Amino acid sequence: MEIAIPLYDRFTALDAIGPYEVLGRLPGAQVRFIAHEAGPVTTDTRMLTLVAEARLEDVAAPDVLLVPGGGGARALLEDERMLAWIRGAHETSTWTTSVCTGSLLLAAAGVLDGLEATTHWAARDQLESLGARPAARRVVRQDKVVTAAGVSAGIDMALTLAGLIAGEDLARAIQLGIEYDPQPPFGAGSPEGAGPDLVALVRQGIDAAERERA
Amino acid sequence: MEIAIPLYDRFTALDAIGPYEVLGRLPGAQVRFIAHEAGPVTTDTRMLTLVAEARLEDVAAPDVLLVPGGGGARALLEDERMLAWIRGAHETSTWTTSVCTGSLLLAAAGVLDGLEATTHWAARDQLESLGARPAARRVVRQDKVVTAAGVSAGIDMALTLAGLIAGEDLARAIQLGIEYDPQPPFGAGSPEGAGPDLVALVRQGIDAAERERA
Repeated sequence: MEIAIPLYDRFTALDAIGPYEVLGRLPGAQVRFIAHEAGPVTTDTRMLTLVAEARLEDVAAPDVLLVPGGGGARALLEDERMLAWIRGAHETSTWTTSVCTGSLLLAAAGVLDGLEATTHWAARDQLESLGARPAARRVVRQDKVVTAAGVSAGIDMALTLAGLIAGEDLARAIQLGIEYDPQPPFGAGSPEGAGPDLVALVRQGIDAAERERA
Repeated sequence: MEIAIPLYDRFTALDAIGPYEVLGRLPGAQVRFIAHEAGPVTTDTRMLTLVAEARLEDVAAPDVLLVPGGGGARALLEDERMLAWIRGAHETSTWTTSVCTGSLLLAAAGVLDGLEATTHWAARDQLESLGARPAARRVVRQDKVVTAAGVSAGIDMALTLAGLIAGEDLARAIQLGIEYDPQPPFGAGSPEGAGPDLVALVRQGIDAAERERA
């Protein structure tokens, strides 16, 4: 089973690595990190570089595509090469998935037209403007399209997907293997839990980062 | 604030990337991925390569050291260069931390002598044989030494650490930024939740992987 994860400049590492750590443990899984060109790809923080082993077109028909999000996603909303790759891979995929603002790229490619989907909480309006119906849920499945909310939600999505692909027993074994028994020390992981003041503060930070890049 | 994450052949990606995604968002934080030699380092699945930007000795006195675990940790238990780096960094660090079997390396370096510490649930006996007092908790703090349980526990540990370093308000903002509101689809993330049959199965898998590498 081939699982393609397209990387791009300023993607968010955990969006990709959370699901990789789950799906890579499925029997027979081969995770392929790909990009516009094979070679180093740097994350949104500029502090980390991952290596894409191949070009997008080298993995044209994966069983699973998983598009991560990150500050760089918006720069690709009109990147015909990435969008064409997504469209092509989606045509023959068994599962088409995204994490965080990766769903904006699925939407821009036309994959989410009229479908319910999720994204980072701060990007729901933009997801709607791209033709999807945003849902404030952590994992949203519409037939073979599965989207996850922000960053860390990719782990929950991947475990759900592992259960769908290989059965619940195997998904539970993977969960135990990565000891995923989360115990966050604070309860601020959702806009509802964080409250309006913190939401406004974090949204300001995200907007400032966007402006800085623009 | 300099945060050093030493990588090595066959480390587990999420052990490093979970905490990086949290701690890298602290104001003024600089996460440095280092290794025996600068350059590509491949993870335990052999499907992913990260780039170490510098050699261990190039980041000799970080404010925070964070040692990830993985199948390759055991091969370094007598690696004097890694152990000397850990000992040296620990001497002047503000925080000395580990995720998963990264605590075996802290213990082998002498950092955990007589201290309570945690590790992957399947490695508690080995942690004890290296001189620490294993605790079946997700995050264990002993003064400036903070250890996390298996793989995904690094996210909880890093949020705890972010609160200690920069205050709870900022840690909560980071939690909201990465939308860490975990909702695992299954309850098998701990040995207690998974039950003895699944524990035996996953332990067999881990042991088989160890033998294969030996």
